[in-house]
Amino acid sequence: MEKAFKNEIKLQFPYLCNAKLLLAVSGGVDSVVLAHLCKTAKLDFALAHCNFNLRDEESDADEDFVTDLAKKLKVKLFVENFDTEQYAKDNGLSIQMAARDLRYEWFEELRLKHQFDYTLTAHHANDSLETFFINLLRGAGLEGLSGINSDSNKIIRPLLNFSRKEIAAFAEENNISWREDSTNASTKYLRNKIRHELVPILEDLNPQFLETFLKTQSHLKENEELVEDYMSLLYPKIIGKTKYGYSLDINYLKKVPNTSAILYQLLKSFGFTEWNDVYNLMDAQPGKMVFSASHRLIKDREHLLLTEIDRTENKTYKIAKDEDFAMLPMGTFSFSEVKEIKEKTPNCIYVDPQKLDYPLTVRKRQEGDLFYPFGMKGKKKLSDFFKDKKLSLPEKENSWLLCSGDKIVWVINQRADRRFSITSPGQKIIKITFSL
Amino acid sequence: MEKAFKNEIKLQFPYLCNAKLLLAVSGGVDSVVLAHLCKTAKLDFALAHCNFNLRDEESDADEDFVTDLAKKLKVKLFVENFDTEQYAKDNGLSIQMAARDLRYEWFEELRLKHQFDYTLTAHHANDSLETFFINLLRGAGLEGLSGINSDSNKIIRPLLNFSRKEIAAFAEENNISWREDSTNASTKYLRNKIRHELVPILEDLNPQFLETFLKTQSHLKENEELVEDYMSLLYPKIIGKTKYGYSLDINYLKKVPNTSAILYQLLKSFGFTEWNDVYNLMDAQPGKMVFSASHRLIKDREHLLLTEIDRTENKTYKIAKDEDFAMLPMGTFSFSEVKEIKEKTPNCIYVDPQKLDYPLTVRKRQEGDLFYPFGMKGKKKLSDFFKDKKLSLPEKENSWLLCSGDKIVWVINQRADRRFSITSPGQKIIKITFSL
Repeated sequence: MEKAFKNEIKLQFPYLCNAKLLLAVSGGVDSVVLAHLCKTAKLDFALAHCNFNLRDEESDADEDFVTDLAKKLKVKLFVENFDTEQYAKDNGLSIQMAARDLRYEWFEELRLKHQFDYTLTAHHANDSLETFFINLLRGAGLEGLSGINSDSNKIIRPLLNFSRKEIAAFAEENNISWREDSTNASTKYLRNKIRHELVPILEDLNPQFLETFLKTQSHLKENEELVEDYMSLLYPKIIGKTKYGYSLDINYLKKVPNTSAILYQLLKSFGFTEWNDVYNLMDAQPGKMVFSASHRLIKDREHLLLTEIDRTENKTYKIAKDEDFAMLPMGTFSFSEVKEIKEKTPNCIYVDPQKLDYPLTVRKRQEGDLFYPFGMKGKKKLSDFFKDKKLSLPEKENSWLLCSGDKIVWVINQRADRRFSITSPGQKIIKITFSL
Repeated sequence: MEKAFKNEIKLQFPYLCNAKLLLAVSGGVDSVVLAHLCKTAKLDFALAHCNFNLRDEESDADEDFVTDLAKKLKVKLFVENFDTEQYAKDNGLSIQMAARDLRYEWFEELRLKHQFDYTLTAHHANDSLETFFINLLRGAGLEGLSGINSDSNKIIRPLLNFSRKEIAAFAEENNISWREDSTNASTKYLRNKIRHELVPILEDLNPQFLETFLKTQSHLKENEELVEDYMSLLYPKIIGKTKYGYSLDINYLKKVPNTSAILYQLLKSFGFTEWNDVYNLMDAQPGKMVFSASHRLIKDREHLLLTEIDRTENKTYKIAKDEDFAMLPMGTFSFSEVKEIKEKTPNCIYVDPQKLDYPLTVRKRQEGDLFYPFGMKGKKKLSDFFKDKKLSLPEKENSWLLCSGDKIVWVINQRADRRFSITSPGQKIIKITFSL
């Protein structure tokens, strides 16, 4: 296996030879063998060991074992202790997910701090196979079945083409000792059940199954990449940036074949679950919406608008009398006395200070809002004003109002209310400017 | 299940309601239940039963059972007997593959002859699941794992969303009898091994596994279709038609991401197995080739040329004296005496009949061929002549020569040999014309 490993490095990961590497080592046979292989391949590496403190003295014995290993291999060792149970509890995670998050966060921290080029982990072909079945059991799509990206996030898995059997054989042949994880032999976890019950049946039916599987998985990975390439091609034709998120061109979507599949690909990372509702949205009434935990998709005439769900409450902000500046979450207001009305731009209004009722307030629209648009006769429902301007729902929702008492002074950056405008020459004029 | 079936028909296959259907029925529970369901859904159908004569009196009892079923349901029945073992032997197929070929061929024959719109088969969700694992064990890619196209070839599988359990329960509830296939209970075949050993483990780990799996498979199918859409987009940019097959634009191929994956997609139906050789061909010397059983891929400067392997032997064809026409496989020669040389076109030559040595022969190039090109001094190797003309390998291979004895008279449609040309005025002139 030593030769095969060197070959794998040469062909698949030649850049590891001149890199500074951080090797994640649990003390189990896989990571210990990888450490030995890296040593014989003369790679430049240090070890990183996580003590998750989940198995009391066993966890500590693992740590001692890894300390000895580092000494024997004459490489640097980093160790970190984690209160995994607490972290899991705090974050609503399973112990396994918590341990996973903690490890990878710490590895990345270490990597950046000590300028390692890559982090190596000892995942092997059987791990991939087991993950395939775990994801299959969970109803994963192509992404879940096509395997981990072997070089994403600066994490390299140089043993992915080796089997558990090969690794164990290498350990035995070279009298390499390791720490047996006591959960490994049990069928307590899903992974172990797959390892000890499911895979043996498949290997009985096809003794070369693991190899066969790796070929299948690399085919799946290729197809996944082709779908991604296709999406990057379609992306600029379908998706546009808007002020509040993204817009998807419904007409274009309907023109391409397999519209639903494409919508799924484009939106899959936004947490939607009711996909049929998403697909039907294209033909729904404008204003209809579908929600995920974090996002909202809105039908808006010829587009679907994707926006993050607004988590800022519909607060009312106050601006006291005699303030020159008011810095609020939506932007900054400045107030200045001017002699005359010079330039009119959308981001400022000129008002008669006598008519203002302090403190001014800044808020979003409310049911029943009315105002007297400058330059128009009579009053108008704010909702009709927005409708006439053909504002999309996110634009309406993100419109702010400057108010005096219960009267609208300014639909900010859109239209002043004429009740507060300058009517007689020579009077006092306040210029209110809004900037983001 | 009756209601669910009607619903499935209504939503997935509404066109079956007004169609004439042929239902493949073995006598097993699945097809018998489908027949009953079609009856209650008031579909217009007939039954088709294959007697493969593989299990002696059992096969005949199946046939009798189906005959009774047709009477009971008051539908027409077609029965055909096959000598499956002989067919398998004759075609080098396994018994199972032979039976499969025979069935589908016969169904399609029946369908066309009696004007059925569709053939229905009783494949269900568990069949899909088992096929998934059979293909996984064989190292299939996305195509093998994404399931059968449920509406290809006019074959509809309306039970694909129902489980074996649901079907069996329906049979029991409605006192429907069927014939048990004696091979079903054994673990003799791969499929049975998967059914009885593998799937129960997965269902133990996830009781909803079958449903979960159907979702996964429909995701895979979507991805497969997206890859196909992407390929149809790339196809016209990469592939051109040539006289002898197809040409692939190497420069374009190298510009797109995931070149190898795309080459694989474009060429996967041509039987290549040495894919690394195929990928490396783009950077190989012109003239280098990779073969499949049926096709050949040739590096030719800026293109890869795909041609069928020429199975016509390199025969020599004879043309006797005094023939006006000679119809040969590569085209037709006509011979006519003319008074003078009028128009010169590539598809005709004018020769001095005195110089011809009959019978003339027509053959392809041979090692060492030489000729005296009309309009040039001296002689020339045929290989050099082709090289100067920058002919691709398929073009060279498909060039025919008209010969007189061992002398080349005409590199057909390319160049005459001047040894046979007209030298004195008033002499006898034969015009030889070649047409495809």
